[in-house]
Amino acid sequence: MPEKLSIDTDQLQAALNANDTAAISAYISKAETRDLLHAITSLSEEDQSRLLLALSDEAGAKLVDRMHDIQAAQMLERLSTDKAAAIVSGLPSDERADVIGRLSIEDASAILAAMPVAEAQGARRLMSYPPDSAGGLMITEYLAYDQTLTVGDVLDDLRAHAHRYRSFDVQYAYVTGDGGKLVGVLRLRDLLLSAPTELLADVMIGDPLKVRDTAGLDILQRFFERRPLFGVPAVNAEGVLVGVVRSADVEKAAEERSTRSFLKFMGIVGGEELRSMPLSLRSARRLSWLTVNIVLNILAASVIALNQDTLTAVIALAVFLPIISDMSGCSGNQAVAVSLRELTLGIIKPYEVWRVFRKESAIGIINGVVLGILLGLVAWAWKGNATLGGVVAISLAANTLIAVCFGGLIPLALSALGQDPALASGPILTTITDMSGFFIVLKLASIVLPWLTL
Amino acid sequence: MPEKLSIDTDQLQAALNANDTAAISAYISKAETRDLLHAITSLSEEDQSRLLLALSDEAGAKLVDRMHDIQAAQMLERLSTDKAAAIVSGLPSDERADVIGRLSIEDASAILAAMPVAEAQGARRLMSYPPDSAGGLMITEYLAYDQTLTVGDVLDDLRAHAHRYRSFDVQYAYVTGDGGKLVGVLRLRDLLLSAPTELLADVMIGDPLKVRDTAGLDILQRFFERRPLFGVPAVNAEGVLVGVVRSADVEKAAEERSTRSFLKFMGIVGGEELRSMPLSLRSARRLSWLTVNIVLNILAASVIALNQDTLTAVIALAVFLPIISDMSGCSGNQAVAVSLRELTLGIIKPYEVWRVFRKESAIGIINGVVLGILLGLVAWAWKGNATLGGVVAISLAANTLIAVCFGGLIPLALSALGQDPALASGPILTTITDMSGFFIVLKLASIVLPWLTL
Repeated sequence: MPEKLSIDTDQLQAALNANDTAAISAYISKAETRDLLHAITSLSEEDQSRLLLALSDEAGAKLVDRMHDIQAAQMLERLSTDKAAAIVSGLPSDERADVIGRLSIEDASAILAAMPVAEAQGARRLMSYPPDSAGGLMITEYLAYDQTLTVGDVLDDLRAHAHRYRSFDVQYAYVTGDGGKLVGVLRLRDLLLSAPTELLADVMIGDPLKVRDTAGLDILQRFFERRPLFGVPAVNAEGVLVGVVRSADVEKAAEERSTRSFLKFMGIVGGEELRSMPLSLRSARRLSWLTVNIVLNILAASVIALNQDTLTAVIALAVFLPIISDMSGCSGNQAVAVSLRELTLGIIKPYEVWRVFRKESAIGIINGVVLGILLGLVAWAWKGNATLGGVVAISLAANTLIAVCFGGLIPLALSALGQDPALASGPILTTITDMSGFFIVLKLASIVLPWLTL
Repeated sequence: MPEKLSIDTDQLQAALNANDTAAISAYISKAETRDLLHAITSLSEEDQSRLLLALSDEAGAKLVDRMHDIQAAQMLERLSTDKAAAIVSGLPSDERADVIGRLSIEDASAILAAMPVAEAQGARRLMSYPPDSAGGLMITEYLAYDQTLTVGDVLDDLRAHAHRYRSFDVQYAYVTGDGGKLVGVLRLRDLLLSAPTELLADVMIGDPLKVRDTAGLDILQRFFERRPLFGVPAVNAEGVLVGVVRSADVEKAAEERSTRSFLKFMGIVGGEELRSMPLSLRSARRLSWLTVNIVLNILAASVIALNQDTLTAVIALAVFLPIISDMSGCSGNQAVAVSLRELTLGIIKPYEVWRVFRKESAIGIINGVVLGILLGLVAWAWKGNATLGGVVAISLAANTLIAVCFGGLIPLALSALGQDPALASGPILTTITDMSGFFIVLKLASIVLPWLTL
């Protein structure tokens, strides 16, 4: 889909060059977020810093809030600690913790030290949670009232702080008891129907739905799957209300997790890579993955080296080795994808080896036979040697079966071992299928060698 | 992560065998959604039908609502039209359209014909939108009042229908004018502060934020990126209010789109595959992708066939051909992943060929040299032939550079051509890198042949 920029990126560069703060601000407020991110990415590092320096702290915070955490962290690291701290202070609580979490330890500590004490404490508290837990996802902008207050007190507070609460997502207010413990929830529409003199304890819904601050993304997804709620209060071990987890944030975190899985599967390890990151970091991270792969590849190819005599006798086989390697990889990856998906959906469990084996072996036999016949016919037609066709056909058929069975089972095994299936399934699969594929072709050929060299 | 089932799946099977409706209902209401889906998947097709028949229409609808659309459609297709229609009628509006959309045309038509006319019309209307558009994502359960009503009228209506509205996500009510045109939005908390006699037209916020019903997922994501709202009203070409799009549904749709991309990249085409689907469908879909790949593979391997003489002279090269093919694929896939990600984030545009080429070629040179030296040393050590080491090293280095450049650029090109980069990038990349890799190794070897055969 070719996209047209809604606003020319040169506009931002021109405004920066002219140091025209008004034009910069106008551009930022007008631009679609994607175009804005694109324009900022196109700037040099110096210009990115100048951009944040040209803006007020508040406008800078708004800009940083719209950026991806990793890009925001990159830009903040190039500013002075004080300017960075001022911008970070202006962020919403969840975003603040996320951005600081992406900074280097040194920069994060320096910025936290330069922030107002209460804010820094809040950020430290949120940062102490794993990013994909309720604590890591929750916001701390919510309404909570003590149960001894009245409906009238709440209405007065709402009126008095209408402006401040404007940025809150107010559908519910929470009711707390001793020590801030969550005791109830108040739907704002219930306030409509209650007398101002009633106590919150009497109009609230007691024993409300809640999640532990340590609850993981899976639990949160399951929670919202069954309940079309906007958000849910999060409590700590003592039952004290510590934040609100919004369903949209949970879905967003799930999307980011899918993306991370995909990136890892493709060999982007150690976190997200953007082309604006330093070359040395990008190169080193990609190499760390590639060097593991090259070792595994050499291991697999040693099977060929050990059967070199057969290959010398029937050089035509050398044409089919990469095809069998690649096709087995393709078939196996399809099975890996289905297993990863079913694990994510929770409709298979890591111990259901037999079910997956049964289902995959059936496909492996059908697809193996079809692909084997196809490639076998090509080999036969090419060299006019039916035995060569037979060797190629049987090898690809057998190795397709091996590939889909291992492809289906490797993610289950990694999952059961507590390993990340997205990261390791690919290399393990291709190593196994390469070795078995090379072995089958060359052993089979050595057995029928007299007919191959007719 | 080994998972323990919270409730034994055998329990559901036992309750079904005993035809114990109470036990079935108790199991369903207690079970976590994942465990429930897992238990249902484990049932035979007959038992899945018996399960829905054992439940009331309402309970059946609640169960179907918790299932994945594709699983739900599978189960409904096995029921009688009347039972299926009764269950579908009980679903929320957006879910109803989604599930019907997954049925075969015949089943969908039959079920729609058996549904109450108004409901069927509503479902048809929602189904007429693309699934990832505002119209396809929106819900039609919302509060809307004519602008000529008073605050008091609204409060009366809220009180009178409190029970029915309980399932609505009521944070806002919408105000409509002539012919149902959206003219304003009413925050429920504003009702608190207004006199019952005031007209809605006077207390509403006029000219509210809205999206077109045809707006795509990208536009909706951008909309909510900048605005932490729960939902936004959707209007048709005439400005008539037709539904409400919730931000959580937009994030969820984005997550599903990422997943589909991943599945397509892995060769799962034609829609999601679950192992509960018929073998023939699963096998045929996977084969459709594999046969394209095998043709491309044969094409690539023809480069080896054309240079067979060189290979016969230096059989050791046959060991390195699959390694170079696979390693180039790995390096190229990393670049594909980064381009896909940057395209999704909108921080590169399809025409930024030069930027991507510059960034990737720098990595390609570094990683190519490192990997080339590594593999070259292995080749040298193995055969004691420095020329062999040199050929392997230079080939892998050159082909790594080619792979990352093409890997980075192919998704841009496909995107610019309006093609799906997730689907086609992989096969195109490996075909190019296999051909160039085989060609470089064998041509280079033929040039230095005297030194290779020392």
